[in-house]
Amino acid sequence: MVELTPNSSFSLTIRLQLPNRAGMLASVTSTIANCGGNLGQISLIEQTRKISLREITVDASSSEQAERVVEALKALPEAKIIRISDRTFDLHRGGKIHIRSRLPLHSQSELAMAYTPGVGRICKVIAENPEEVFSLTIKSNTVAIVTDGSAVLGLGNLGAEASLPVMEGKAMLFHEFAGIDAFPICLASQDSDSIVEAVKNIAPVFGGVNLEDISAPRCFEVERRLREETNIPVFHDDQHGTAIVTLAALYNALKLVKKSLEEVRIIINGAGAAGVAIARLLRQAGAGAILMCDSQGIISTSRAHLSEQKQEFAVQASGSLADAFQGADIFLGVSVPGVVSPEMVRSMAKEPIVLAMANPIPEIQPELVDEDVAVMATGRSDYPNQINNVLAFPGVFRGALDCRASAITTNMYLEAASVIASLVNPTHLERENIIPSVFDERVVTAVAAAVQQAARQDGVARE
Amino acid sequence: MVELTPNSSFSLTIRLQLPNRAGMLASVTSTIANCGGNLGQISLIEQTRKISLREITVDASSSEQAERVVEALKALPEAKIIRISDRTFDLHRGGKIHIRSRLPLHSQSELAMAYTPGVGRICKVIAENPEEVFSLTIKSNTVAIVTDGSAVLGLGNLGAEASLPVMEGKAMLFHEFAGIDAFPICLASQDSDSIVEAVKNIAPVFGGVNLEDISAPRCFEVERRLREETNIPVFHDDQHGTAIVTLAALYNALKLVKKSLEEVRIIINGAGAAGVAIARLLRQAGAGAILMCDSQGIISTSRAHLSEQKQEFAVQASGSLADAFQGADIFLGVSVPGVVSPEMVRSMAKEPIVLAMANPIPEIQPELVDEDVAVMATGRSDYPNQINNVLAFPGVFRGALDCRASAITTNMYLEAASVIASLVNPTHLERENIIPSVFDERVVTAVAAAVQQAARQDGVARE
Repeated sequence: MVELTPNSSFSLTIRLQLPNRAGMLASVTSTIANCGGNLGQISLIEQTRKISLREITVDASSSEQAERVVEALKALPEAKIIRISDRTFDLHRGGKIHIRSRLPLHSQSELAMAYTPGVGRICKVIAENPEEVFSLTIKSNTVAIVTDGSAVLGLGNLGAEASLPVMEGKAMLFHEFAGIDAFPICLASQDSDSIVEAVKNIAPVFGGVNLEDISAPRCFEVERRLREETNIPVFHDDQHGTAIVTLAALYNALKLVKKSLEEVRIIINGAGAAGVAIARLLRQAGAGAILMCDSQGIISTSRAHLSEQKQEFAVQASGSLADAFQGADIFLGVSVPGVVSPEMVRSMAKEPIVLAMANPIPEIQPELVDEDVAVMATGRSDYPNQINNVLAFPGVFRGALDCRASAITTNMYLEAASVIASLVNPTHLERENIIPSVFDERVVTAVAAAVQQAARQDGVARE
Repeated sequence: MVELTPNSSFSLTIRLQLPNRAGMLASVTSTIANCGGNLGQISLIEQTRKISLREITVDASSSEQAERVVEALKALPEAKIIRISDRTFDLHRGGKIHIRSRLPLHSQSELAMAYTPGVGRICKVIAENPEEVFSLTIKSNTVAIVTDGSAVLGLGNLGAEASLPVMEGKAMLFHEFAGIDAFPICLASQDSDSIVEAVKNIAPVFGGVNLEDISAPRCFEVERRLREETNIPVFHDDQHGTAIVTLAALYNALKLVKKSLEEVRIIINGAGAAGVAIARLLRQAGAGAILMCDSQGIISTSRAHLSEQKQEFAVQASGSLADAFQGADIFLGVSVPGVVSPEMVRSMAKEPIVLAMANPIPEIQPELVDEDVAVMATGRSDYPNQINNVLAFPGVFRGALDCRASAITTNMYLEAASVIASLVNPTHLERENIIPSVFDERVVTAVAAAVQQAARQDGVARE
């Protein structure tokens, strides 16, 4: 397996003491470079006539590589390691979000307004007119990030507690990208009925529900039932966030290769939440030929025991993933690392488009087929064309909350995908720039506006 | 009924334009005073040769009185009201708390550490070692404020949505007084089983559960079951918070009148959550003679259909609340406004202690028995001796979270009450100063320390 590019997820801060002599720092930096570590900040903490105390940030591509860097530094006879800390762990200690008062509470008068007795007046108004909960409480800007911990990132069924760091990270993204207050709800049960009951029970506080990292096929039932049984928007990001951004990227990639969605042959590998949602949205957008694969290859009508969702996309053809690649125009991977070989990619039609979105390690490393593809995208931030849900969900919820949408509709997804694609100016559209950066500040506003407009057209906007 | 003191819960900001002539502002202020309004800030917004534009803050004692102030000002021929706003409503718009990132997310490197792929490393560590959830997530500092909206303040069963402003206020108090991140969970169900299930389901994210405004007798069962079925501290504040602060106040009031808890005759009016918890804690603290009353008078063993909790305190005597007052040393009211008459208080033993804690309007207005009692306390901030749960719950949870208590014990309550009482220095102890101010910064630290010590003694501290 090719090593990944070093990145901050494996980042160390190393404080070390060196003799204050020429060449000492150079021997440290070359040692790090020889191990494949990527140097970041190098700070001089203290310097005397005899010694220098420095703090060095090193990005690695894996825990093992980080370990090798440390071992190599320990082996340097003149360097003395004072402290090593893992930046990712440091950053997670105590959690990543907190809850704050929007107003001070420093006097009796403030207490009397924000709490008893003043708050009683607000409660009575809401009891008499339930719609007022949207204007007089946090509800209209608050989203529950709900998981059962059954499909945490690409890591599998780690359970509720272990999923919490992801949900906290998601809450950060909601706030940083869309000014939305989002709170993690990690459920102790993985039973569909219990999940639905729990979410319905806590719904009064929330203006929307973002389902996250719930495994297929349970996620489909949970989402469907919550949509039927609550009156707030419910959005399973692993499905629809991924589908929206994938479609946006495809719109632009197809412009580059001058093919149309109606004509191309598309392979989707992975028939979980994301794969199914992508296939459904592509159909809505006009795609004709979709070949869906799972770990057993092409999902064929001849296979027994297909799930409801797989039946929806089963085809008469059968064969391996490699068979599916033959002559295909587009590969969309939402599966597992490394399942695609350069040979498969080379068997595709002319100017193939490959979106290898398995996280954190793609179905194929971009370096391996750099010359063979017209457009390549991954889910990673350290390669061009990052297919990242953060382009979609903040704006989708911003739009839905702002118009108090009672539901999320397919038109919202389609409009969101179109507007994201449109933000790459035609003059800047190129094979390494098919999708806006997640830090492009226009994205949230544009997506929110598109979603609101679709909500009004579909009659689900309540304000 | 006597009018309450004006306070900020009925507070208006009135912007008005007056001719710029001597005596104009005086006519406004005397008009407000004549209606009983209490003037706060008076700001000069703009002044020309002809007019003055002023903004005046007025506290009233009720919505009706606030209305009278406005009508009287409208009737002034030379005053022109530009805008009136209700400060309590202004303050609630959009809600009172928000959720923020503890760290910035402005670069790919920050994203890679706080979200994917870096966060995956944290998830794996917690999956392998579940205790790590306390150090690597928000859990160890996060409390769920759980209600079913069945007993909102003194207002009754207003439902989940209408209870949210109270829970938000509570979250503010948690943060402002103890640095705890607390989040409102207002449940759509008022069924005990559903409440217990919902709380168990969301428990993975929380280090503790504060039950709030759940009506009796359901609250007793919900609390008992959650204590049995979860491994985090569960604390029903309406019960134990009230009991702790009541006991603290009694300790000091008894010092003033030189009576002992073992000897005094105590009436408790109100056999709901607070009344039962006070009675239980007083017994644990050594109180002997407790006479418990409800809306039908003394809870007598001769009455049929007594709840389990009422049976616990039923006595052979029977009679009205007035009968109970005869010769009693202490009255503790956790019931409804105005049920106690001055005559009842005058029938008590010498140097009676009256804690009339119904909110927002006490069982008897202090003004009516000022000369008849040795010590008077209420739940209100605008009278001396405020019996306010905020003296207890922030410190109780701070202490419980800091030692990762697996449960809350009676010793924690007793130690918290003692330490709160001890914060009123003997030289400052007097009839209008039996309890620390809610703004006394020593309180949380002292209560937290006492609770931690009790947790260690009781073997429930996990760190």
